[in-house]
Amino acid sequence: MSKRVAVVGLGLIGGSIAMALQGFEDYEIVGVDVSEPTLRYAAEHHVADRVTGDAGQALAEADVVFLCLHPQGIVDFLQRNRDGFKAGALVTDVCGVKTAIVEAAKVLPPDVGFIGGHPMAGTEFSGVQNALKHMFRGAHYIIVPNKNSRPDQVALLERMAAYMGCRDVVKTTPEQHDAIIAYTSQMMHVIAVSVCDDPKLFEFMGFEGDSFRGCTRVAALDVPLWTQLFSLNAPQLDAALERLEQNIGSYRQVLRSGDRRALAEKLEWSADRKRQVNRWEQEHQT
Amino acid sequence: MSKRVAVVGLGLIGGSIAMALQGFEDYEIVGVDVSEPTLRYAAEHHVADRVTGDAGQALAEADVVFLCLHPQGIVDFLQRNRDGFKAGALVTDVCGVKTAIVEAAKVLPPDVGFIGGHPMAGTEFSGVQNALKHMFRGAHYIIVPNKNSRPDQVALLERMAAYMGCRDVVKTTPEQHDAIIAYTSQMMHVIAVSVCDDPKLFEFMGFEGDSFRGCTRVAALDVPLWTQLFSLNAPQLDAALERLEQNIGSYRQVLRSGDRRALAEKLEWSADRKRQVNRWEQEHQT
Repeated sequence: MSKRVAVVGLGLIGGSIAMALQGFEDYEIVGVDVSEPTLRYAAEHHVADRVTGDAGQALAEADVVFLCLHPQGIVDFLQRNRDGFKAGALVTDVCGVKTAIVEAAKVLPPDVGFIGGHPMAGTEFSGVQNALKHMFRGAHYIIVPNKNSRPDQVALLERMAAYMGCRDVVKTTPEQHDAIIAYTSQMMHVIAVSVCDDPKLFEFMGFEGDSFRGCTRVAALDVPLWTQLFSLNAPQLDAALERLEQNIGSYRQVLRSGDRRALAEKLEWSADRKRQVNRWEQEHQT
Repeated sequence: MSKRVAVVGLGLIGGSIAMALQGFEDYEIVGVDVSEPTLRYAAEHHVADRVTGDAGQALAEADVVFLCLHPQGIVDFLQRNRDGFKAGALVTDVCGVKTAIVEAAKVLPPDVGFIGGHPMAGTEFSGVQNALKHMFRGAHYIIVPNKNSRPDQVALLERMAAYMGCRDVVKTTPEQHDAIIAYTSQMMHVIAVSVCDDPKLFEFMGFEGDSFRGCTRVAALDVPLWTQLFSLNAPQLDAALERLEQNIGSYRQVLRSGDRRALAEKLEWSADRKRQVNRWEQEHQT
């Protein structure tokens, strides 16, 4: 192996990336973490080709660096290690907000390329013990290159995403990413926790079906992570929630009117939108 | 086989019940439908031991009748066939509202026992082609017996639910069922369609992860069925949605305040409630 990928932060996503990238071209996958138990677990379970607690050394030797920390951790890490990356290296991250991260990456020297990323996968668990080699199978991998991004580095990231099993690589801007993710991901988490805040939650035991499980699965979330994600994207998330409230309110109005025909027409409209999404997903299935 | 179960309505749920009940004790499973293509499909795929379009004959011979029609269809069927059931028969249904159905079943003669039921399972598809033998594996089966229900008929229903693979049988009143189901099931469907009503829906393509898929899966719903279910339980559903709006509003308030610590505390509270539900589910796993 002549080249190296450093995966910084062997949590749920970092651990999964290290597992999924093993064997990629001629790269050695080096796992980096500050936690001794995490490093020991990662070594015993062969989460990476090699693990180390020495981030400085790993960075200096890495051709590609995946920053797999919480958003604030990424911002701090970039600031602290701005001069520690290898010249010509590609640095990327995997967190769920992009505007704040891309802004923070401006501290890097010009010969280090930063391309923000966001693989759309995860589970409601956290930690290296829950990492999965096949976490990214069928997932979208979003990246936010800019006009200065090196085409060979974009292409490298695309090959790695494909190797990890991703369905496709979607390119967008940090701002667009954050606006859409507020709706497709963050709002789903606010819905899930809000449903669980209902005073009847514990009365329902034994009455829940798959629709309840599907909607609330993500409510048992990683609190520090989601506090940061929500806070770093609060205006966009609030706007998405306002639209949701209007749409729920519109259903309540028809329900209260007792007009079954209007209700049926409204449901038909919404269900048809979902069916269009399903068709799109089927057509774009890898 | 000395006894007979008639499954009236070979749709998604009726078809699945007929498949799941084959081999139960010494019962022959007879599938009943009005649609020729459905009967042909059911016969070719052995959905039941035997299928027929003659509901009158099937009812007259059945010791147990499962009414697997839409809610209004059940009400109408009971009215129309009130004198067609075998003396001593157990009649049950599988639909998602219970107060209106139990009320409608009062037309039955005293020697026919009616116990409303609601197996908490399903998919977003409909029709016999989507029926599954294992649809009920791990699902709760809710029944609403009353003080006049024969213990042997309650016990029979419990054995059948167990045979179908259900996790447990939960007993409650029709009113309690409808109040809770408004929250655990109907509200999930209103959330799913409301999310799909968002003007950004079609922009998001390529940005959706499992949280979005989990929350919106049920949006591609059976419109006539859900129009009836919502309409027959509108006040309870509206009350549940009002509580949801308050809970989402409370999150929006903290988000807008910019108080990260308050947000983290709130998320911790909600996530802990979900973890309690998960623990309960694990403990009650069959």
